Amino acid sequence: MPSKSTSSSAKAEETGTRILEAALALFREVGFDAASMRDIAVKAQVATGAAYYYYPSKEAMVLDFYERSCVDMEPKLAEALEGAKGLEARLRAVLQVKLAHFGPNRSVLRALLRNGADPKYALSPFSTETKAIRDIDLDWYQKILLDCGIRIPKDLEAELPGVLWFFQMGVIFFWVIDDSAGQKRTAQLLELAVKSVVTLIKAAGLPLMRPLRKTALELIEVVKGE
Amino acid sequence: MPSKSTSSSAKAEETGTRILEAALALFREVGFDAASMRDIAVKAQVATGAAYYYYPSKEAMVLDFYERSCVDMEPKLAEALEGAKGLEARLRAVLQVKLAHFGPNRSVLRALLRNGADPKYALSPFSTETKAIRDIDLDWYQKILLDCGIRIPKDLEAELPGVLWFFQMGVIFFWVIDDSAGQKRTAQLLELAVKSVVTLIKAAGLPLMRPLRKTALELIEVVKGE
Repeated sequence: MPSKSTSSSAKAEETGTRILEAALALFREVGFDAASMRDIAVKAQVATGAAYYYYPSKEAMVLDFYERSCVDMEPKLAEALEGAKGLEARLRAVLQVKLAHFGPNRSVLRALLRNGADPKYALSPFSTETKAIRDIDLDWYQKILLDCGIRIPKDLEAELPGVLWFFQMGVIFFWVIDDSAGQKRTAQLLELAVKSVVTLIKAAGLPLMRPLRKTALELIEVVKGE
Repeated sequence: MPSKSTSSSAKAEETGTRILEAALALFREVGFDAASMRDIAVKAQVATGAAYYYYPSKEAMVLDFYERSCVDMEPKLAEALEGAKGLEARLRAVLQVKLAHFGPNRSVLRALLRNGADPKYALSPFSTETKAIRDIDLDWYQKILLDCGIRIPKDLEAELPGVLWFFQMGVIFFWVIDDSAGQKRTAQLLELAVKSVVTLIKAAGLPLMRPLRKTALELIEVVKGE
């Protein structure tokens, strides 16, 4: 009975989405720590057992939120990049899409900042659990470097998407803890940081910079590990 | 009765130290979160009320540990810097003294990494509560830049100690989460990162780098805020 199976899987997906949305709403209202699985289930109008069936933990919900965000941002990124010429504009576009997407849940991300720097913590951007998401981001950074109008030194090429990803995490981190009205300090930072990074990439191609580039590449190897 | 008062304040200080040492030992054994004030008091052989008299919270203990570390490291830093010629050697010396000093409590620092990136958290290196400690560090970085053999551009001079401090936090962070044997990855990172930073500072003085330096200085202003 394929039609029934399709409809029940559609229903399952709808329930999953409802639980996730209830969870995010509750995280925003009372904070990630204070929200219990039971309260999330009540808010989503499902039994607690059902909530656990969909998500073994609150952390699993956040991971799912991250993963869905990747999918949801795909068309937004593609659209923003269409009008963006050159690396500086592209980098700015990618970051602006991300901040806008995560905007409604900035307070949730702030709570998750805790442990975020520790790769052992599942929800850390550096963890094994978030590797798939990281890889999608890396693909985007690889894409915006293509024909970006800057000559990228050969030895830097493979590492640059990772460097830009790391840079992205820095900007997001600053934004998460930015208490200025409308996060206007982040807007200023974004403008200047993107400019600095692009100027640095340009400078990295200068013959004069070769020794520094070599050292920086060795450093990147150490940071990446294995 | 000055002699009595001196001896009782010496005793009070001894008790304070004993409580702090018991706390650090317990943090290492069971972790910062699991350690209770009551257990700390038992380990220090004082009443729980006495522990609270000395320290209102576990966070206050860690702050005191940070402050005492500053004092304790003073002669070690002075000694290490005596033999260190040039900025690269000086920077390496400062960082090596710090990592060696905090070595026995690396696991405690790892637990504190949680929230560490959030300036609102008292134990964060970016918090109001840790400003005095930050200022002592900044003084050291100012000191090692004096007659370091590199011409520092005038406009960068006032900001460079802060940049080096930020760099220090990056190295310490890497070390705290470094699970390699004997933290040998940190040793590699330290070598390469110090070299990169010093090369960058040298490059920053080149006329060619002036526009990037201007942008970077604006960026620093935004990050510092107010």
